[in-house]
Amino acid sequence: MSIDILIKKIKEKGNPSVVGLDPRIEYVPAFLREQCYEKYGANIQGAARAILEFNKRIIDGLWDIVPAVKPQSAYYEMYGFEGVKVLYQTIAYAKARGLYVITDVKRNDIGSTAQAYSTAYLGKTLLDNGREEEMFSSDAITVNPYLGSDGIEPFVDDCNKYGKSIFVLVKTSNPSSGELQDLKVGNMTLYEKVASLVNSWGAKSMGRMGYSNVGAVVGATYPEQAAKLRRIMPNTYFLVPGYGAQGGTAKDVVPCFNRDGLGAVVNSSRGILCAYRKGKWDEKDFVEAAREEAIRMRNDILNNLS
Amino acid sequence: MSIDILIKKIKEKGNPSVVGLDPRIEYVPAFLREQCYEKYGANIQGAARAILEFNKRIIDGLWDIVPAVKPQSAYYEMYGFEGVKVLYQTIAYAKARGLYVITDVKRNDIGSTAQAYSTAYLGKTLLDNGREEEMFSSDAITVNPYLGSDGIEPFVDDCNKYGKSIFVLVKTSNPSSGELQDLKVGNMTLYEKVASLVNSWGAKSMGRMGYSNVGAVVGATYPEQAAKLRRIMPNTYFLVPGYGAQGGTAKDVVPCFNRDGLGAVVNSSRGILCAYRKGKWDEKDFVEAAREEAIRMRNDILNNLS
Repeated sequence: MSIDILIKKIKEKGNPSVVGLDPRIEYVPAFLREQCYEKYGANIQGAARAILEFNKRIIDGLWDIVPAVKPQSAYYEMYGFEGVKVLYQTIAYAKARGLYVITDVKRNDIGSTAQAYSTAYLGKTLLDNGREEEMFSSDAITVNPYLGSDGIEPFVDDCNKYGKSIFVLVKTSNPSSGELQDLKVGNMTLYEKVASLVNSWGAKSMGRMGYSNVGAVVGATYPEQAAKLRRIMPNTYFLVPGYGAQGGTAKDVVPCFNRDGLGAVVNSSRGILCAYRKGKWDEKDFVEAAREEAIRMRNDILNNLS
Repeated sequence: MSIDILIKKIKEKGNPSVVGLDPRIEYVPAFLREQCYEKYGANIQGAARAILEFNKRIIDGLWDIVPAVKPQSAYYEMYGFEGVKVLYQTIAYAKARGLYVITDVKRNDIGSTAQAYSTAYLGKTLLDNGREEEMFSSDAITVNPYLGSDGIEPFVDDCNKYGKSIFVLVKTSNPSSGELQDLKVGNMTLYEKVASLVNSWGAKSMGRMGYSNVGAVVGATYPEQAAKLRRIMPNTYFLVPGYGAQGGTAKDVVPCFNRDGLGAVVNSSRGILCAYRKGKWDEKDFVEAAREEAIRMRNDILNNLS
């Protein structure tokens, strides 16, 4: 069961964090961009290759200390189908390195179309030659709950069928997340209502270690709400964005964890990818800088948890 | 302004409907699949080419009678990056034929990432060579409102900058759409609250013909709610899924329109793409069958509107 795999990797590495792979071309150090432009052209092909090369080096430099990576689909789609190919290659490369891959796509649609998305990211596509092939096959993806159960269930079924997980948006990290999510619906907020749905969806897909394969996205920027959600969803793994660049601190993420030190995995993207831009670093040492920041972040979280 | 372009095309063709391009490989007639498999292999490349060929023929056969097409991203993503390339090619082909292209992606994220999606589908990507290039550049896309204003505003800004439109999910056509959308928040439902936000986002991007560039997705399967939404959002264009295969009738879509006969565009996907499977048709005549069904649908809607 997939969430068990994530938990196992978190325990092995002693690190409840995930590296967000949101590589805008301007995050890639100039020397690496130039290498790729020389080889593939100073165009979209060159940019796509530079991003892939950047991701591979980050993965090579961090795979032994982090359990998971989270490629954010938007930053690949903005480089067109060449970029989307790099998303595919990045997922495959990270999986080959033994990393748990959470592809951040926030997909959502009516049942039949949700099934198509699930096939793309969790399942397999049946071809006319009778073969089933994996496409952007990831260990987990993020999904949006606005369409209700029949937009989520195809994903849950595929979690059971293929040993995968999903993380449902519950309380997001952005400033205006409360505009809809904090609205009162009866005696609770909308995000609490979504949390109760996450519980019921997750009950159909429980792992062996007390957590379900239906996780929740809960922003580091809302620690009070996170504490409430931790109580409402004791068996749900939290994917926690908002640490670092968005303003969430290690103290802020503590309420996302259970007493066993499990229950949450904290994301940092820019903070790690662009660590080389801060302080003493030469851009050639971007991997070393990323590794140092990933270790600092791990220790920061662990120190606050203990 | 982009919604004006849609309205102009609807008036020119006398047809307030849109053809959903959701081409699962099994929708493509066997003879066309075999042609492509022979040429490109009975694999993912062959399947992707068969889908592209199918889309092109549908577009060639219908461009003079319909104002718009709506490719649904999931059905391209499920064929991997080869499929996503076909999405790009389909968008470009439809635009070259003068069709208004609504790419149905239902994207959503925090502000900076929403901007990346907007760049991918509405704007232009800045490359290191100083050039700005269009990627999956469409006339409009669908977006999900769960993250609130700062997840929507980057799209609205690009609507203004590039003359584009968005359609925000308000009341979706699926059976469980009410699970969250119908919840009472104060003295209104959640979908009515979203409608009021759509009004305020749209006020920042008004076209010249009385409609804003921020449209709404309102399912044909909920005519009573549509009537209410029509009153709440008089200046909002509705994208109406759910006609045909999902059970919505021409009578059901009437409340989505304003008295001027404008205000809504009704989607049909499977009903048109798979028309050749019904009744008298030989699969070689799939384009003719699609055209006949598109005309029948147009007349069905117009008869009920008059």
